[in-house]
Amino acid sequence: MFFASDNAGPVHPQIMDRLSAANADYAMPYGKDPIMDEVRDSIRTAFEAPEAAVYLVATGTAANVLALACYTQPWQTIFCAKPAHINEDECNAPEFYSGAAKLTVIDTDDKMTPAALRAAIEKQTPGNVHGAQRGPVSITQVTERGSVHSLEELHALTAVAKEFDLPVHLDGARFANAMVALGCTAAEMTWKSGVDVVSFGGTKNGCMGVEAVVFFDPAKAWEFELRRKRGAHLFSKHRFLSAQMAGYMQDDLWITSAEQANANAAYLAEGLRKAGAEFLHEPQANMIFARWPRAVHRKMHEAGAKYYLWNGPLDGDENELVAARLVCDWSASREGIDAFLSHF
Amino acid sequence: MFFASDNAGPVHPQIMDRLSAANADYAMPYGKDPIMDEVRDSIRTAFEAPEAAVYLVATGTAANVLALACYTQPWQTIFCAKPAHINEDECNAPEFYSGAAKLTVIDTDDKMTPAALRAAIEKQTPGNVHGAQRGPVSITQVTERGSVHSLEELHALTAVAKEFDLPVHLDGARFANAMVALGCTAAEMTWKSGVDVVSFGGTKNGCMGVEAVVFFDPAKAWEFELRRKRGAHLFSKHRFLSAQMAGYMQDDLWITSAEQANANAAYLAEGLRKAGAEFLHEPQANMIFARWPRAVHRKMHEAGAKYYLWNGPLDGDENELVAARLVCDWSASREGIDAFLSHF
Amino acid sequence: MFFASDNAGPVHPQIMDRLSAANADYAMPYGKDPIMDEVRDSIRTAFEAPEAAVYLVATGTAANVLALACYTQPWQTIFCAKPAHINEDECNAPEFYSGAAKLTVIDTDDKMTPAALRAAIEKQTPGNVHGAQRGPVSITQVTERGSVHSLEELHALTAVAKEFDLPVHLDGARFANAMVALGCTAAEMTWKSGVDVVSFGGTKNGCMGVEAVVFFDPAKAWEFELRRKRGAHLFSKHRFLSAQMAGYMQDDLWITSAEQANANAAYLAEGLRKAGAEFLHEPQANMIFARWPRAVHRKMHEAGAKYYLWNGPLDGDENELVAARLVCDWSASREGIDAFLSHF
Amino acid sequence: MFFASDNAGPVHPQIMDRLSAANADYAMPYGKDPIMDEVRDSIRTAFEAPEAAVYLVATGTAANVLALACYTQPWQTIFCAKPAHINEDECNAPEFYSGAAKLTVIDTDDKMTPAALRAAIEKQTPGNVHGAQRGPVSITQVTERGSVHSLEELHALTAVAKEFDLPVHLDGARFANAMVALGCTAAEMTWKSGVDVVSFGGTKNGCMGVEAVVFFDPAKAWEFELRRKRGAHLFSKHRFLSAQMAGYMQDDLWITSAEQANANAAYLAEGLRKAGAEFLHEPQANMIFARWPRAVHRKMHEAGAKYYLWNGPLDGDENELVAARLVCDWSASREGIDAFLSHF
Repeated sequence: MFFASDNAGPVHPQIMDRLSAANADYAMPYGKDPIMDEVRDSIRTAFEAPEAAVYLVATGTAANVLALACYTQPWQTIFCAKPAHINEDECNAPEFYSGAAKLTVIDTDDKMTPAALRAAIEKQTPGNVHGAQRGPVSITQVTERGSVHSLEELHALTAVAKEFDLPVHLDGARFANAMVALGCTAAEMTWKSGVDVVSFGGTKNGCMGVEAVVFFDPAKAWEFELRRKRGAHLFSKHRFLSAQMAGYMQDDLWITSAEQANANAAYLAEGLRKAGAEFLHEPQANMIFARWPRAVHRKMHEAGAKYYLWNGPLDGDENELVAARLVCDWSASREGIDAFLSHF
Repeated sequence: MFFASDNAGPVHPQIMDRLSAANADYAMPYGKDPIMDEVRDSIRTAFEAPEAAVYLVATGTAANVLALACYTQPWQTIFCAKPAHINEDECNAPEFYSGAAKLTVIDTDDKMTPAALRAAIEKQTPGNVHGAQRGPVSITQVTERGSVHSLEELHALTAVAKEFDLPVHLDGARFANAMVALGCTAAEMTWKSGVDVVSFGGTKNGCMGVEAVVFFDPAKAWEFELRRKRGAHLFSKHRFLSAQMAGYMQDDLWITSAEQANANAAYLAEGLRKAGAEFLHEPQANMIFARWPRAVHRKMHEAGAKYYLWNGPLDGDENELVAARLVCDWSASREGIDAFLSHF
Repeated sequence: MFFASDNAGPVHPQIMDRLSAANADYAMPYGKDPIMDEVRDSIRTAFEAPEAAVYLVATGTAANVLALACYTQPWQTIFCAKPAHINEDECNAPEFYSGAAKLTVIDTDDKMTPAALRAAIEKQTPGNVHGAQRGPVSITQVTERGSVHSLEELHALTAVAKEFDLPVHLDGARFANAMVALGCTAAEMTWKSGVDVVSFGGTKNGCMGVEAVVFFDPAKAWEFELRRKRGAHLFSKHRFLSAQMAGYMQDDLWITSAEQANANAAYLAEGLRKAGAEFLHEPQANMIFARWPRAVHRKMHEAGAKYYLWNGPLDGDENELVAARLVCDWSASREGIDAFLSHF
Repeated sequence: MFFASDNAGPVHPQIMDRLSAANADYAMPYGKDPIMDEVRDSIRTAFEAPEAAVYLVATGTAANVLALACYTQPWQTIFCAKPAHINEDECNAPEFYSGAAKLTVIDTDDKMTPAALRAAIEKQTPGNVHGAQRGPVSITQVTERGSVHSLEELHALTAVAKEFDLPVHLDGARFANAMVALGCTAAEMTWKSGVDVVSFGGTKNGCMGVEAVVFFDPAKAWEFELRRKRGAHLFSKHRFLSAQMAGYMQDDLWITSAEQANANAAYLAEGLRKAGAEFLHEPQANMIFARWPRAVHRKMHEAGAKYYLWNGPLDGDENELVAARLVCDWSASREGIDAFLSHF
């Protein structure tokens, strides 16, 4: 009954096995390990991007802010939706890594619209030395509210960015969950949709702590390496990042694991729906935002369920509907879900 | 025959076991895992510092620069020896994390002397708004040249710092190797010697990628947490950092592992000495700087030995003495050392 | 017919005279000149703040960002209204000087309401390491839209800040214009209203290029001096900043000059009203936002009038109402205003 | 008897006149004033550089750090001599403006030698992600010790920089004094000698507070404008910077003023020599470093003379030789110098 986050579950056994296998003898440090060669190849293949520059870091915030920093000048502004992780959950790391650039936050509960993005960009007049200059656009897929941009929606947003010659970053902390939900390829959801650099998440989908940064244009490769080292994110025993990512890519674990997570969430959503819960958004990947009476929340919490109440305390009117955020990872068991639902 | 660095060896089985054991079920993310409670207790006990604030990060550079940033204002200068890791091997990360402070580099081949430190501090006149202001003193133990400050030497350096009311940071990437070499306690080598904050290394001594930052005065705790998050160094699946450090502290593995590494280096040094190598410094912990004829280096490299040539290329006069840096970790085998020595 | 900005007018003769008078012999550099003693005294007297720390810089942006930086940690967010100069007109200087802090922009066309400020502050949960931490509140007086906060409005905003223990900065680029409009004292509009530090503008009100930063609590004095030097804003021939500010304070020129500017704007507004212009806001100090037919704008521009069209180009439907921003300084002549109005 | 610094003297009347003349009517702000066009033309002519990008700021530190920031990445290191203003007198402003780059300080009492510069550059191995990367070379002319690089010396230093493809910055706070001492042209001392960007000083040579930054390759122009604004160094009433610089360039005042300053220093040096002073360096421009008995220093100080004791207090052994730094500007009078010398 743990639905607090997909960042709190166990590591997939296939990845643990790769870690053990990597733990033999010596390996060259700092990314020169041979497993990294395997990783680079498998990610390039997965993204149909034979020239892509591929790097590993240990946290999703590191992936986001290092990727963005390569495309942001300190006098620019990054365009993103209000709930974006880079805006609400990274304690000014994007500002820190970009050398004190600004975020222009597009006011929305979930996705940006192309019109709102265009309006925000147009407001920053080019050639006006007084205002922040236009910088990259960052899109989150799966969004922080659990919804998934369709390929059309992605295209529409990146088309606006391209019209103004702005680079596009995709925060893919839940990349595989979105891809599986859309039934598309990694290429379609990135460079074929106008994305220049992606934070390709592993941690939330069965890894221990690894994310890839994939640049479709390798021109930024050396700058990234310098920024990663300067940010203290270059691992000496890098092979253990490589091994995780190798295990994640091996036999499409990244895909099957996301399928399992999404299926778990769908099963949970179906149960909630039957029990009468109201959905804030229709769940599309592995996150659910729904509300039901406070009295039921109390029973669930007393029984040890873990999840976030989204807009209200546990104390108050018994009958009031209180929203919850529930996240499933690959490891959530049907028994746990059933036990949780039994409290309705 | 791998002596390139102690950051390229395998993880100790006891630590791998703790990682596996930690991989059950869910654990609260971001350092709220119960294993972190065990870690905090064991480090406080090891350092005889029941109030210490203890945090984990994944790289030695992160430990150094986050620790220093908590004690450095952007208009200050950090005092350190020229070969310090923070000066030569961190690609401006100390400058980045401190908000663009300066490093005042004390010109030395290895250790700072108290007199040189004092001269450097005195040169920065207090109240002179034009110059950098005096900031923390950072000491490396084991030094980057493989030598170990005696407790008297440490005291003498920190006494200078204290005289000017400056905080002291200890870069202990090889903390246990130094402690074992001195035969002292962790407390004696830190707060009893005037150290305020220590980077307590794990990675080079048998861990996968974990370092602790230990503040003897917990006043900086919350600032550290914010700096760590803002630097993108807070792990969501933090229990896997905790598990490494728990395994490292368990049954004094950190000590026995360092004893093994130092003993391996002593064995290697003894063999080199018998073979006629000249030592640049007398080896004290697990690093050796010595020179012997280039022709021998060539044979060793052809046989697959891995180590750094310190001051010259592999090509050149056969008889010229060329220096090498050799580092042993806990896992170096006597067979490997013997095989290496057989090339003399 | 120049109403583009109060930053484009001439320097008042009284200030030019002080510059000439200061230009004799030698004076100690870097703020040690005796004229600075006069300035400090006169500003402390004007603000009824005998302990205040008083410093001079040459630009309004420097005053704002250096003042704010003294109250902002890099992991905090500064709360301000959307049109604030620090948000829209300083090219990320606040982010730069604060070490990469964030601005939380309160969505409004002009003033923040206390409720909106409270909501923005409350959204940043204390103790949540993932989000930006709560930082200072910055209020602009006169606002960038030409309106003036009443003392009650100022109190209401600072009361919210104080409730959360947040410091308050006042961007007073047009400080005197607001004070004269309110008919209050400098103390009433600052520390008696809960303001901790003020950017006290001189440049727009008859100086050449000087602004004072006034800290009512002198605890930040030395930090400010270091930040000013590090920002490259400490003048060697500082006496020429001092002389300007001395001339500005002398015989209440700062007040009479603002009275003149406000009276000029009132005269212009009266003429515009009679001519049929519509006001976006009721003008309160020396700025006017009003609209009238495009055909009239064209005539004015052809006749050489200088001012900003606020929301539309000069080309288009002749009868459409187009808004303009008009600013008067102390030097605007009635003849110029009459000439301008004659084009209606 | 004021020889403390050339930054403490009066403004030349020709420049005051230009300030008064500029103070009529309105002028477009932020560098769009027509006087700036005159300035740009006159500096381009003086430097025989018709394409140069020319900008004005108010302080020498601003000129240095903004110029350098345009050529420095945050992971690079700037090479300079130990006594350089950017190293010793700018309170970490170069680090701040470059986004936390490092300074590699070449240990010398005065000028760098080409060999020392080369050694420092070579120590930073290209492609080594752990160390700082090679960045610009900054040369000070006149040096902080009052000596002047010959054109051959300049060439030799810039040739080393060029060999490694590194840009060259010239800190010309006393540019005209050096040029006059060498009897060369501005072009010969800059782009013809391999300099890419120069801080062209005005303040110390008769201006109130203005320095030009001259880029011989205009590719950095827009970046400079953004960095200047973001650094809060863009003046709204910019015409008063322009007017100073226009007055400075007019009728070669910058040259005649420097000739006067150098001649004053030569006259003073001659007097000192006759009185028996020992020179630390042979004076070449407008600065003198010399020593004489402490008893004489005391008499001079008692008589009101102002200058810096260079290496010792005023109190101590009467007969000990104590060094002094003496600086003359254009306005130093022969009477003052004679009065000063009379105390020997």
